Amino acid sequence: MPPSEIDLIRARLAAHPRRADLAARRERIDDLGAGYVLPPDVVVEPVSAHGVPAEWTRTPAASGGRVVLFLHGGGYVSGSLTSHRHMIAQAGREAEARTLALDYRLAPEHPFPAALEDALAGYRFLLDANVAPTQIALAGESAGGGLALATVLSLREAGLPLPGCLWLSSPWTDLALIGASMEAKAAVDPLLSRTYLTELANLYLDGADARDPLVSPIYADLTGVPPMLIQVGSAETLLDDSIRLAAAAGAVDVSVRLAIWPHMIHAWHLFYQEVADGRRSLAEAGAFIRAHLDGA
Amino acid sequence: MPPSEIDLIRARLAAHPRRADLAARRERIDDLGAGYVLPPDVVVEPVSAHGVPAEWTRTPAASGGRVVLFLHGGGYVSGSLTSHRHMIAQAGREAEARTLALDYRLAPEHPFPAALEDALAGYRFLLDANVAPTQIALAGESAGGGLALATVLSLREAGLPLPGCLWLSSPWTDLALIGASMEAKAAVDPLLSRTYLTELANLYLDGADARDPLVSPIYADLTGVPPMLIQVGSAETLLDDSIRLAAAAGAVDVSVRLAIWPHMIHAWHLFYQEVADGRRSLAEAGAFIRAHLDGA
Repeated sequence: MPPSEIDLIRARLAAHPRRADLAARRERIDDLGAGYVLPPDVVVEPVSAHGVPAEWTRTPAASGGRVVLFLHGGGYVSGSLTSHRHMIAQAGREAEARTLALDYRLAPEHPFPAALEDALAGYRFLLDANVAPTQIALAGESAGGGLALATVLSLREAGLPLPGCLWLSSPWTDLALIGASMEAKAAVDPLLSRTYLTELANLYLDGADARDPLVSPIYADLTGVPPMLIQVGSAETLLDDSIRLAAAAGAVDVSVRLAIWPHMIHAWHLFYQEVADGRRSLAEAGAFIRAHLDGA
Repeated sequence: MPPSEIDLIRARLAAHPRRADLAARRERIDDLGAGYVLPPDVVVEPVSAHGVPAEWTRTPAASGGRVVLFLHGGGYVSGSLTSHRHMIAQAGREAEARTLALDYRLAPEHPFPAALEDALAGYRFLLDANVAPTQIALAGESAGGGLALATVLSLREAGLPLPGCLWLSSPWTDLALIGASMEAKAAVDPLLSRTYLTELANLYLDGADARDPLVSPIYADLTGVPPMLIQVGSAETLLDDSIRLAAAAGAVDVSVRLAIWPHMIHAWHLFYQEVADGRRSLAEAGAFIRAHLDGA
């Protein structure tokens, strides 16, 4: 049997292992994104979102006022506009929406709550630009998924209007790392081990409590949170972060869609150009967003 | 605020409480189904499915060879072709498929494994009628959802071809009743309490082990089970039966879609004519089935 598409990605990742120093780690994920050709119909426009470096993307499919506000992954210490641009643009195409990606501040230079402050600034930037909250999908991958949830919790506490829906791919929702998949999937996850996640959590927390709901929304009361699509691969140590999130949200009457994609690895959407299930996952997310946002 | 659609259903259920004797219970659920007008374009055709009383339904939307094989709910002791006909026909319309509903044998007259034997007979009937397994969605509600899973596990053990997908609404997957929602949702579930479910389980088990995977598929190794859509209401004592099923299936690389519908009660699809979320749930199931079956 020839190797599957995702096995080819595994082989590529193994050929370029993660390095120890932070600069090299950041360069590695940026190189991953920069290595993909952006389709020629994607228009990219840098912007300052109330002081946070950000960029719009749009494709000819974007219609009406819909916006996907995207928070990239990278464990709160890496990831950027460069690393995720190709994937975010494709998500926007499927959602028939503009996207606004935020280059939020990273740990260890800027630990919690810097990233959360920047995410809130980005959301307020949209409101101040007269984007209706019902036209905003708040989205995030990995650490960005947890950050998206923390953003919604902060908005709720502040009495601000909530976005129309949430799209979370491979979200990291528990920095205390107690999910059973942390061990059960250790052998098949090529990216995230307990050791590595512990290191990332410590850099972001900088002494904060790992069970603070604003860093680990799995411990929050999720009442009133907008409808959410959670997508996770079955080959992830973070699988249980998604399942437990679905359980916690459903228990308090949140509308939940949980999609478990067999054999997919952490943040597989990034590889959508080579992996059909990445394209299908982005199409699923786009359909969810279109169904949950006002189109006007 | 006026009562919601599902609150009106709650009021109707409260006005016609469950009675103690079995015949009255069976009459109550049959009356519920018989009280709905079947749309005039639904064609119903009785059939013997290898000895199991059954019926086909089809609407003008049915196309190609797709079949939804449906196992009704009723706690293994009640439910019939009459109780579920209206809802199954609508599911078939949304799936653009014929449906085959089985009048499987009920406890206590026919305890485990009678219902499972009948479900297997119904499936073999379709194969013998030259329906491709990739054109069959195996579906079930409540007890029928657990029965659908047990059927797939039996097919797998027998080395028979598996259906193309599973659609499970409010499935009862754990007759040992250990889900946390059994207590957490007791106050908001108008239909199923631990006391009542214990009685039903004992009638069906007739001495069998409540953790036998063929009565409680949550305890099975679900490896190789087809893609499944699980739909559950957030106001169900059985909420955790769905969440734990999603977890158990996802852990062994099954493709899972879990949909948690806020405020919906057990088996809310039955009330689709009055409840918009019932119609939306059937549309979601139909889209899932169309996406996962061969259309030819």
